[in-house]
Amino acid sequence: MDLHGGNIYKIKGGEKMLDYSANINPLGVPTSLKNLISNNIDKLVNYPDPKYTDLKKSIAKYTNVDADNILVGNGAVELIFLIIKSIKAKKALIVAPTFVEYKRALELINSNIDYISYEKNNSIFVTPVEKIKKEINDKDYDLIIICNPNNPTGHLSALEEISKINKVAKKNKCKLLIDEAFIDFLPSGEEISSKNLKDENIFITRAFTKFYAIPGLRLGYAFIFDKEIIEKIEKEREPWTINTFASIGGKVLLEDTKYQQDTFKWLREEKSYFYKELSKIEGVEVFKGQVNFILLKIKDKRFTSSLLRERLIQKEIIIRDCQNFEFLDDSYIRLAIKNRKSNEVVVEALKNIFKNYF
Amino acid sequence: MDLHGGNIYKIKGGEKMLDYSANINPLGVPTSLKNLISNNIDKLVNYPDPKYTDLKKSIAKYTNVDADNILVGNGAVELIFLIIKSIKAKKALIVAPTFVEYKRALELINSNIDYISYEKNNSIFVTPVEKIKKEINDKDYDLIIICNPNNPTGHLSALEEISKINKVAKKNKCKLLIDEAFIDFLPSGEEISSKNLKDENIFITRAFTKFYAIPGLRLGYAFIFDKEIIEKIEKEREPWTINTFASIGGKVLLEDTKYQQDTFKWLREEKSYFYKELSKIEGVEVFKGQVNFILLKIKDKRFTSSLLRERLIQKEIIIRDCQNFEFLDDSYIRLAIKNRKSNEVVVEALKNIFKNYF
Repeated sequence: MDLHGGNIYKIKGGEKMLDYSANINPLGVPTSLKNLISNNIDKLVNYPDPKYTDLKKSIAKYTNVDADNILVGNGAVELIFLIIKSIKAKKALIVAPTFVEYKRALELINSNIDYISYEKNNSIFVTPVEKIKKEINDKDYDLIIICNPNNPTGHLSALEEISKINKVAKKNKCKLLIDEAFIDFLPSGEEISSKNLKDENIFITRAFTKFYAIPGLRLGYAFIFDKEIIEKIEKEREPWTINTFASIGGKVLLEDTKYQQDTFKWLREEKSYFYKELSKIEGVEVFKGQVNFILLKIKDKRFTSSLLRERLIQKEIIIRDCQNFEFLDDSYIRLAIKNRKSNEVVVEALKNIFKNYF
Repeated sequence: MDLHGGNIYKIKGGEKMLDYSANINPLGVPTSLKNLISNNIDKLVNYPDPKYTDLKKSIAKYTNVDADNILVGNGAVELIFLIIKSIKAKKALIVAPTFVEYKRALELINSNIDYISYEKNNSIFVTPVEKIKKEINDKDYDLIIICNPNNPTGHLSALEEISKINKVAKKNKCKLLIDEAFIDFLPSGEEISSKNLKDENIFITRAFTKFYAIPGLRLGYAFIFDKEIIEKIEKEREPWTINTFASIGGKVLLEDTKYQQDTFKWLREEKSYFYKELSKIEGVEVFKGQVNFILLKIKDKRFTSSLLRERLIQKEIIIRDCQNFEFLDDSYIRLAIKNRKSNEVVVEALKNIFKNYF
């Protein structure tokens, strides 16, 4: 099966289907970026600035983090790989279920990987702060990874929780990697971000991908407050991994407040609608998340996640089968939240499939 | 100093100067690609196909190499790093002077690096085949790297020479990495490419960057006939390093025969003109190359390469100071070949500077 959602290429006609498997903002590619690209195609004739100075300045301005603490990359994924490689963790703890690329990056450096499970409480996931602290105290981890808000559960670890974990981690010489790929979907994202701890022990990655609906452009950034490590990464990395359009696009996107406000408005309305409608379907349990996707557990014994996926592909809807996530099994699926018309189609399809809940 | 040419961002007003430091086709971004990008900006909303199947098919068709033997990357540089990492060379031999990224990639895996020098014969560089063979037989190299045609000397190692080196290398369990980033500037490029040896021992990297004038797009490919290694690289690499425009652009560029023919015509005429005119300047020795740049040695004792670079920046011309290339010193510079009007400006500037050759 696929490691990720969004692989529409494996499915015949996939490009024309409703893709609920990738958590992409349905407002689509921002007009501001489209215009910028159209007007600057000739810029491809130059190498991008190898230091990406202007891009870093824009991110610094928007996030209020010093440009010297910012690393930019070919999507957040390049940065996750670079950071994990630079930390050289011998033993790592991943709070799961979560994004699978942490595991892949850790395997490349032959890390020992342990998992600790999020807890469930009345269809809401919870970060097990005390258990994580105990694990760190008991074992010799070099690195803990937390996706926040977490994919695929959609729940948020509070800044205070991260701070508590970090205190114990730091005491045990264990670094913290926080993946904030979805945090900008929260209007309060900048306030609740772990960047506010400005701690050398914490590495934070972020993406333009989901919020600005541009997985094809490849742009992400990281906050690294450990001066030695950020300098080492910059010194050793391959040159020019960020293409010209991504490198000039970041500024325009961060300044597009209209797109940002429209996104917040859409998500507020549609999350509430989609959650309410899905909750009416008896065959599934719906987990309450904070961002632009929803995790569901199939209760109807007639369906596994892969079977349900097949059935929905027949209805031209692609969903994310979650059985390859640690601690999840073949009863879990993830749905993106899209616009009302599409969400209605998905609700209708699921209602039909589960109408005789067994 | 800069590791590479083309860093126009470090120079005040650099974007408006004549950039002779980067070896980019002066015909500029092909219209075919510009149209493709303009018409497909909305495609950024999807992740690129993680397997890049269509892109590989196009390259396979154009190069007549099986798609299973093709790896695609974020410029040739990503592929050079991936290949060197996968070969894990303990001891490597670089034929030099040459592109500096091989060294950087080897340093990351803690390789021991030796250099062997190209030889000069009447202002033409020559590949020292017998000396290389002897080195391989005498020492325990795991990897030899040859840039072909070579940057910055511009000379070509014949297929027969590569084949001779490979035979001895293979016997000694030493792999060969051939960087063909400039081979498409030769109309006979496909015939004289090392790909024709189809040998498991040979790894070949190529770029769209220089020929199609798109360093900002980031697209390269590699031929790997060792099935085990190509599978391992694909399995371990980061996903989506090639952006959507690069991934759909490859096909259009390879099919743009008009641009290719125009390029051959331009280069035939301008190489001959530029070489002839530069050769008239007494203060420099001009090396005869095969592709779109020319290496010069300053004979005039009043000038070092960095001094000459500074003088030319005052005239709004950026050249490549070659003193950071192995075996070259501060008397070498490299000039791209551009269009007639610009080439005339550079010839004039150099004639003026060297008019009282000392």
